Amino acid sequence: MTSRMLLSLLLQTVFSLAAKRDDPDEDELLPPDTGGIGGELDPSHGSGTDPILSDPDSSLLDPLNEEMFSSWALFILLFLLISALWSSYYLTQRRIRAVHETVLSIFYGMVVGLIIRLSPGHYIQDIVTFDSSYFFNVLLPPIILNSGYELNQADFFSNMFSILIFAIPGTFISACVLGLILYVWTAIGLDGVKISLVDALSVGATLSATDPVTILSIFNAYKVDPKLYTIIFGESLLNDAISIVMFETCQKFHGKPAKLSSLFEGIGMFMYTFSISLLIGCLIGILVALILKHTHLRRFPQIESSIILLICYESYFFSNGCHMSGIVSLLFCGITLKHYAYYNMSRRTQITIKYIFQLLARLSENFIFVYLGLELFTEVELVYKPLLIIVTAISICVARYAAIFPLSRFVNWIYSVRTRASYRSMLYPNAYPQNDASAAQEIPYNYQVMMFWAGLRGAVGVALAMGIQGDFKYPLLATVLVVVVLTVIIFGGTTASMLEVMNIKTGCVTEHDDSDDEFDIEAPRPTPPTDLGPQANFYMDDNDSNSNNDENEFTANANNENLQPDLHSTVGTPRPSIKESIGNIFRSDSQWFQTFDDHILKPVLLDNVVENQRSDNNQNQH
Amino acid sequence: MTSRMLLSLLLQTVFSLAAKRDDPDEDELLPPDTGGIGGELDPSHGSGTDPILSDPDSSLLDPLNEEMFSSWALFILLFLLISALWSSYYLTQRRIRAVHETVLSIFYGMVVGLIIRLSPGHYIQDIVTFDSSYFFNVLLPPIILNSGYELNQADFFSNMFSILIFAIPGTFISACVLGLILYVWTAIGLDGVKISLVDALSVGATLSATDPVTILSIFNAYKVDPKLYTIIFGESLLNDAISIVMFETCQKFHGKPAKLSSLFEGIGMFMYTFSISLLIGCLIGILVALILKHTHLRRFPQIESSIILLICYESYFFSNGCHMSGIVSLLFCGITLKHYAYYNMSRRTQITIKYIFQLLARLSENFIFVYLGLELFTEVELVYKPLLIIVTAISICVARYAAIFPLSRFVNWIYSVRTRASYRSMLYPNAYPQNDASAAQEIPYNYQVMMFWAGLRGAVGVALAMGIQGDFKYPLLATVLVVVVLTVIIFGGTTASMLEVMNIKTGCVTEHDDSDDEFDIEAPRPTPPTDLGPQANFYMDDNDSNSNNDENEFTANANNENLQPDLHSTVGTPRPSIKESIGNIFRSDSQWFQTFDDHILKPVLLDNVVENQRSDNNQNQH
Repeated sequence: MTSRMLLSLLLQTVFSLAAKRDDPDEDELLPPDTGGIGGELDPSHGSGTDPILSDPDSSLLDPLNEEMFSSWALFILLFLLISALWSSYYLTQRRIRAVHETVLSIFYGMVVGLIIRLSPGHYIQDIVTFDSSYFFNVLLPPIILNSGYELNQADFFSNMFSILIFAIPGTFISACVLGLILYVWTAIGLDGVKISLVDALSVGATLSATDPVTILSIFNAYKVDPKLYTIIFGESLLNDAISIVMFETCQKFHGKPAKLSSLFEGIGMFMYTFSISLLIGCLIGILVALILKHTHLRRFPQIESSIILLICYESYFFSNGCHMSGIVSLLFCGITLKHYAYYNMSRRTQITIKYIFQLLARLSENFIFVYLGLELFTEVELVYKPLLIIVTAISICVARYAAIFPLSRFVNWIYSVRTRASYRSMLYPNAYPQNDASAAQEIPYNYQVMMFWAGLRGAVGVALAMGIQGDFKYPLLATVLVVVVLTVIIFGGTTASMLEVMNIKTGCVTEHDDSDDEFDIEAPRPTPPTDLGPQANFYMDDNDSNSNNDENEFTANANNENLQPDLHSTVGTPRPSIKESIGNIFRSDSQWFQTFDDHILKPVLLDNVVENQRSDNNQNQH
Repeated sequence: MTSRMLLSLLLQTVFSLAAKRDDPDEDELLPPDTGGIGGELDPSHGSGTDPILSDPDSSLLDPLNEEMFSSWALFILLFLLISALWSSYYLTQRRIRAVHETVLSIFYGMVVGLIIRLSPGHYIQDIVTFDSSYFFNVLLPPIILNSGYELNQADFFSNMFSILIFAIPGTFISACVLGLILYVWTAIGLDGVKISLVDALSVGATLSATDPVTILSIFNAYKVDPKLYTIIFGESLLNDAISIVMFETCQKFHGKPAKLSSLFEGIGMFMYTFSISLLIGCLIGILVALILKHTHLRRFPQIESSIILLICYESYFFSNGCHMSGIVSLLFCGITLKHYAYYNMSRRTQITIKYIFQLLARLSENFIFVYLGLELFTEVELVYKPLLIIVTAISICVARYAAIFPLSRFVNWIYSVRTRASYRSMLYPNAYPQNDASAAQEIPYNYQVMMFWAGLRGAVGVALAMGIQGDFKYPLLATVLVVVVLTVIIFGGTTASMLEVMNIKTGCVTEHDDSDDEFDIEAPRPTPPTDLGPQANFYMDDNDSNSNNDENEFTANANNENLQPDLHSTVGTPRPSIKESIGNIFRSDSQWFQTFDDHILKPVLLDNVVENQRSDNNQNQH
């Protein structure tokens, strides 16, 4: 019956096609390669089968054809995405680590970009052109949100100080060094490009945003030491946010005479934007927690997950709408969400939100890299200046060097002071090490090199570069684009070997890595036995059951656990005087926040049911 | 410490703001309502705080401001979505069923649309304008895909015949009746609108797409009889696809003289498009099943779920790119996916895909209705012709009446013939009922009225209407828009009361309804004890554990189970001759497909592991 129906359909089709051929209206010659299906169905247009070959001007007028072109453009993009994901599967499956997924994504993008470029007609070319508003409103938010949400909070907080140092002054140093080198180079004028200092700093900021995607997927595959992982992850996350804010600040000074007061004004604006954005993000995260706590929304998980997702995006658009940084808001909204609201969600929503964030982030990441590759050939206005590109590529290495090594030394110094201070305050003053060098460094030399190497640039830079103003927009954009692709290929391609060369600890199996792929959707898992008191359990998150230890490190010291077996007991001891050390300020500060969080914020924000359940769990275990 | 930092930041901000006020470059007068944050941070522009009040021409030039405007536009849209979802929560929570979520969505959209319309400046207005390419490429696919995926296959197949009758000839009748009435009305020329017959038929096709969203959520809330639910759901699903294909077919004849041969050509094109699209969808679904079967993709659930999602979209864009109907392909891709590929996925992917499809579909649905409301006021070109609107509103009722009631009678007649035939072929010929009237009707009168009532029109119609060509595009578009909103408000608002008035069976608790909200993510659940042989278990899907019975109904008869307690045993009996009845053809046809499916398709497409597991389960139970 089915086959008979098909047959009759085929006959009818042939009939209708034959009828159309005899149609006197249809007097255009069909191209010789007309196979059947595609072109012949469109009698009103009749411009042949190949959409690219048809006249672009007439196709622009016809909405039906326009839809077909955009369908093909989207088809190509999705096909590239599937290829990238498939390669990723293949590489993971065969344990090939020399070539990375992102490099392949860029490569696929380049191949297809070249084909599109060489094909006649420019309709598809116009459609696939990188649009920075898409990037910022559609592609970037899921990545940032997922980063904030997936962030291992215990690890993040215990390395907070290093991360902040590398992220804030680090990005600032990098941008300034790069900006100055570029300014000096363009002042020489070998390329015919002449930009102002503010514009040079803009480009510097653009190229200071390190990319979290590639490096972290390699680190994940190798199960690199969690501390290095956390520092690089945290740095590259905040990094993006900071360079975006810095770029926008620079752009506000575009075309104005550079004054010394502008510097302070810029710094003030930067800090204002950053902190207000952070506040917006946290407040919206807290708002979600409160809404979930005080309503019965969790009885309707579909609505619940939709609303949570939408509110996260609202933080982004609200912040952007207020001229603040949406990225910063979104990042901290994600972090706050995971820290508080997560415990008030229904189990189904916890799962849905996690998977959706992951999926969207993964798709966006691949999309961005495919786009970068496409862009190289399809963006027609780009002006490539080889010398400028080489100089920029060299100077980003210099800038990264200037940021990482001095700041690492500074962090190491702070930590050695801090360690000394905490020894002094310990119950066992005899344990105080007389020899500074014997204490393990917070960031040893091989970690520093690895951090330098991990400074490859990503799509955020390109998206920012789209916003560069002035006469030299296109040479600068082309430079940024090529440099980004180069760093991804060179640094990204060699990271795996560098890990071995630098003798970095790999194969650190934590539950964090495993549970991500495993199917962990049982009832909320009982908290493991612990002698740290009930508060420590609040820090448990879905991915990470060893966070108790990390949290404990957080209250005490992050490094050299072996040397300090009894440090846990210092929590209750009288504090040393403020003057005693810089380190203690950080420690007491974080302690203050933790106490505040446990005794004020969590009871207010978390749901009673959850809390009772948790304390029940604890009672059962004790 | 934190408060001290905040204080210093505030001081710096105040300082920087103060510095800016004294800046000689900044000589524009700030508007008196400048509260602080918003406008002052933008010294390069300085056009005041209210984005809508600023001059739209200058803001178009400035990328920074443009981004801000689009942020606010998106913020407003998301806010509307959240409001709609929140109302939905509130209504469900308070068990208010008189007002429905979609009506509220439209209402919110209208209110905000009015505000935007009345505000000076047109930048936000331009951004929020309905773009049909967004609708077709972004909003519609998730809804259709989810419908296909969530479709209760057992119910769908057992009511396949009725669904196809209402969907294919039903839509055709409706479109023709509506088109003819409109053609005659416009030929009278009271409105100054004069359209050709082909254009009138286009509008008829546009307004023949019934909307699955509103009616089905009401039906879900009331737990209406699954048969009525399935017929209406199936009809409105296929309906959309068919009216889209019909509309596109009509558009291809736009501007050509109407000939009798065009009618046959049109029908041929329609059937060609529909069947090829169906084939594309099924083949892509089967492709996914084969890929999943023959690779180890399920070991990497993140990649797996991304790839599945992308391939579904590929079916849509591929089909559209070939001038076929993407909607039809996507729908059947979803159905095939659930029927075969589902069993080859990892458990995590099964969950991810289900939740993501649901979430995206829900968001898209709400988005569409919000947009419809917005559109009424923000689309400036619309020309409202009151008489035309009234005539159209009346004629869609006539058209729906002309489609539903005669076809219901036809379906009832077919089923009565079929029932008689199956009695004749039974082992107990004594059970043959002498009296035709005593047999329950397939579609009783109250169901017919309910189906008539359920024919409210949705967003697909509006999106299609965007593609209307010719001089009278805007009056026609306005008419379609208003009629759609009217039907949603009137029919949607009264459906709940109609259910009571027509005495429709409600409160039918099936597992299908419950498991949707429940958290059902354990290991694949063991198949319930059954004496139907191992094949029946293949039809088990995630939502529905009573599908065994339904499948069995499918092989036998769908209706009056009470009258035929031993019908199950007829499966093995010798068939009556082909001439005996029309009904038997349908029955033997579906049997043929089921056998083919179980013995050829499933072993080829499903994974061995799954199959073995299933047969193990069966052996354990026997």
